[in-house]
Amino acid sequence: MPRNQFRGDFRFYKIFHPMFSARYHCTNHCLGDYSLDTIIYNCPTCDALLEVRHDLAALKQTSAAEWKEIFERRYKSAEWPDDSGIWGKKEWVNPHVANENIVSLGEGATHLLRAARFGKWIGLENLWVKQCGNSHSGSFKDLGMTALVSQVKQMIANGATIRAVVCASTGDTSAALAAYCAAAEIPAVVLLPKNKISAAQLVQPIANGALTLALDTDFDGCMAIVKELAKRPDIYLANSMNSLRLEGQKTISIEITQQLGWQIPDWVIVPGGNLGNISAIGRGFLMLRDLGLIGRLPRLVCAQAEKANPLYESYKTGFREFHPKRAEPTAASAIQIGHPVSVKKAIAMLQEFSGVVEQANEDELANAAALGDKAGLFNCPHTGVALAALIKLVERGEIKKSERIVVISTANGLKFPEFKIHYHQGQLNEVIAKYKNAPVEIPASSEEVMEAIQQRLQFEFAMK
Amino acid sequence: MPRNQFRGDFRFYKIFHPMFSARYHCTNHCLGDYSLDTIIYNCPTCDALLEVRHDLAALKQTSAAEWKEIFERRYKSAEWPDDSGIWGKKEWVNPHVANENIVSLGEGATHLLRAARFGKWIGLENLWVKQCGNSHSGSFKDLGMTALVSQVKQMIANGATIRAVVCASTGDTSAALAAYCAAAEIPAVVLLPKNKISAAQLVQPIANGALTLALDTDFDGCMAIVKELAKRPDIYLANSMNSLRLEGQKTISIEITQQLGWQIPDWVIVPGGNLGNISAIGRGFLMLRDLGLIGRLPRLVCAQAEKANPLYESYKTGFREFHPKRAEPTAASAIQIGHPVSVKKAIAMLQEFSGVVEQANEDELANAAALGDKAGLFNCPHTGVALAALIKLVERGEIKKSERIVVISTANGLKFPEFKIHYHQGQLNEVIAKYKNAPVEIPASSEEVMEAIQQRLQFEFAMK
Repeated sequence: MPRNQFRGDFRFYKIFHPMFSARYHCTNHCLGDYSLDTIIYNCPTCDALLEVRHDLAALKQTSAAEWKEIFERRYKSAEWPDDSGIWGKKEWVNPHVANENIVSLGEGATHLLRAARFGKWIGLENLWVKQCGNSHSGSFKDLGMTALVSQVKQMIANGATIRAVVCASTGDTSAALAAYCAAAEIPAVVLLPKNKISAAQLVQPIANGALTLALDTDFDGCMAIVKELAKRPDIYLANSMNSLRLEGQKTISIEITQQLGWQIPDWVIVPGGNLGNISAIGRGFLMLRDLGLIGRLPRLVCAQAEKANPLYESYKTGFREFHPKRAEPTAASAIQIGHPVSVKKAIAMLQEFSGVVEQANEDELANAAALGDKAGLFNCPHTGVALAALIKLVERGEIKKSERIVVISTANGLKFPEFKIHYHQGQLNEVIAKYKNAPVEIPASSEEVMEAIQQRLQFEFAMK
Repeated sequence: MPRNQFRGDFRFYKIFHPMFSARYHCTNHCLGDYSLDTIIYNCPTCDALLEVRHDLAALKQTSAAEWKEIFERRYKSAEWPDDSGIWGKKEWVNPHVANENIVSLGEGATHLLRAARFGKWIGLENLWVKQCGNSHSGSFKDLGMTALVSQVKQMIANGATIRAVVCASTGDTSAALAAYCAAAEIPAVVLLPKNKISAAQLVQPIANGALTLALDTDFDGCMAIVKELAKRPDIYLANSMNSLRLEGQKTISIEITQQLGWQIPDWVIVPGGNLGNISAIGRGFLMLRDLGLIGRLPRLVCAQAEKANPLYESYKTGFREFHPKRAEPTAASAIQIGHPVSVKKAIAMLQEFSGVVEQANEDELANAAALGDKAGLFNCPHTGVALAALIKLVERGEIKKSERIVVISTANGLKFPEFKIHYHQGQLNEVIAKYKNAPVEIPASSEEVMEAIQQRLQFEFAMK
């Protein structure tokens, strides 16, 4: 399609662009590539994870300035599917999904919040929080799940028989899978260890109609069955082995850059467990650079809970060694992972982005989350890990006062009320709650209320 | 400011527009008007609620087409404060707040979700859900609170001594107040009856650092003290008597219209308790019409819980009578209000918008919410009331298959996990859970899993 036609007929350009292409390749550089319509998760030669590679030459036929203009025009558009932060960047995510097969719940385009008060408290002038948890299912997993479920819908439209999309997850992944499959009328199946999961953890997949199977085994047993099922041609796997999800998640980097007026931050800090997200964020920035939309890369920080810190241990060896470990229970439950699936991709990314790995113990992550809340945030414990890592990097001078920092908040604090309640009741393990705020009981009179306000004001004043 | 200057210098226009003005007036049409800098909530002559009136003549100097262009340009903006859905419409909300005093947490610009599957199930082709709960504090209250707290910050900048912003609330209002005051460094105070509130209800104000006072009285006793405090010149009242909040909330109507390509829906359905929101939504559409952006008005539906239905009872008398009543406990707890503050405004609006009032009992609201979840939504019980009212209006032919419907979802389902868990456990009072989905326990083998998937598929097929 000639360029002038695209400029003259924007609508046509959006819907029909056969020139763009993306295919699976081995992350280990084995030969061979595979259509996104193939049900495949690992390299048939070496068993490494696959990744999606885009035809950059085709994408380069549109200039950087034109891509910026296209993305800006589509951002927050009222028109389907551009009202999605992901599908307004469709050519960079998955150009093979026809618009009628896109399954969107308004994901992406989350607020980039200027965290001025928190920044001031820790000595930063230019701090931002990317609120990925203000999303349909309450976490950044929506970004990847819209990419995955849309691809499944496209494959079904192309004639594939896919009976169900399956994952083994107790948290955000199963919530996002269930919501997107519900909207798409595709059966979702969530596998869980019997008796180890609370009703609160299951409320989203249950409510969104997923078939929730409680198996008489532990979590590893569930994963073994998922891998068994994944060999079938009629079952599609939604766990993080599936690299399609990263294509959606990488739009975080594009959005941040766009929201900063096409300028990159100096640092991006993201909590890391299975390490798919840090890989995805790296992919986003690399694609921006390779297509000329940015001139340099930010530095990446992966923040791990001390209870589940195999990447941090590896970082201390200069990534020369990596040893999976047994993750211990942490309030940052979604990153309580000792054997991360995407560790190789993540290390490669961190090396390319002059990356840093930092860790936070339970006390540090809970107090950092609480300090964030006190400044008006309300994020998940994993965001607390990222905020704690930020505080450490500022304290030791690695991050400078004037630098521009973006912290990726991965989920909504509303998913973690007990973490916050227990903090303010002083009941979190290994945590001395520095910012505890408890209800004050007083008699019912306006004088007593004014007295209590006065006391609080003096206390706050004394803190400054 | 001449028009050509505004068109040539958009940035200047945004920051400096002394020609726009808004003032408080009595809703009962008593003489007199008051600066928004005045601490006043009721008419000094007749004690009726006040409302904010804008200088429409000044606003009309900008044409409807120009306003549309301005709103669209700002809606997609990455630039403060236009990245807020509210403050991108500042001249229509509160033109007297300087940009440096705006307290924004990225409120507004929530997704207008095409609820295709739910619509199909109930026989509608054109159904949308405005996701006001995908917001910073998880409810539509953010829209009003950014307007209120920004005005307080402006008053403090103007020299007023305001020690604290106070409300008596157990729910979304206190959560929003605490978050915005935390960001603004303004003390927030929440008054509550001692021993009647659970920790889960308090987690947001506690975490966001509000001074939370548990008083030795009931809820009416708390309200009496709030009214006492509101007479002081150094305390600002955030309860719904404060009409500034409606100026933020009315942007829901403007956003919906904008998201539909400047077309209005045929019907807008909103749950109603204190009835501020239906008034606000009416105000938004009236302003759109008065300034020429739309040519006609949609019809409004106020949906009440049967346990708290004084407006429904009044509607049945053609609004000739209104009797406050004792509200009974309902799962739709935020609208469990028998004596609504904004009833007069709401009735006037419903009369102007050919309005309908409908009610839903516990069984209807819970099953409607669950059916929504099954289609991929995840909203609060109050949205369930609105969805149940919609189903009734469709069933009796008042809403037609081809009409365009917008349901206002007021809060995020993540705030109500127990409502959803109890539903799927069959433990909600007065509810027969038609769409119950429970975990299925099976042995740990891939054959058993495939068998369970097969059974579910047959069951789903049989439902169609």
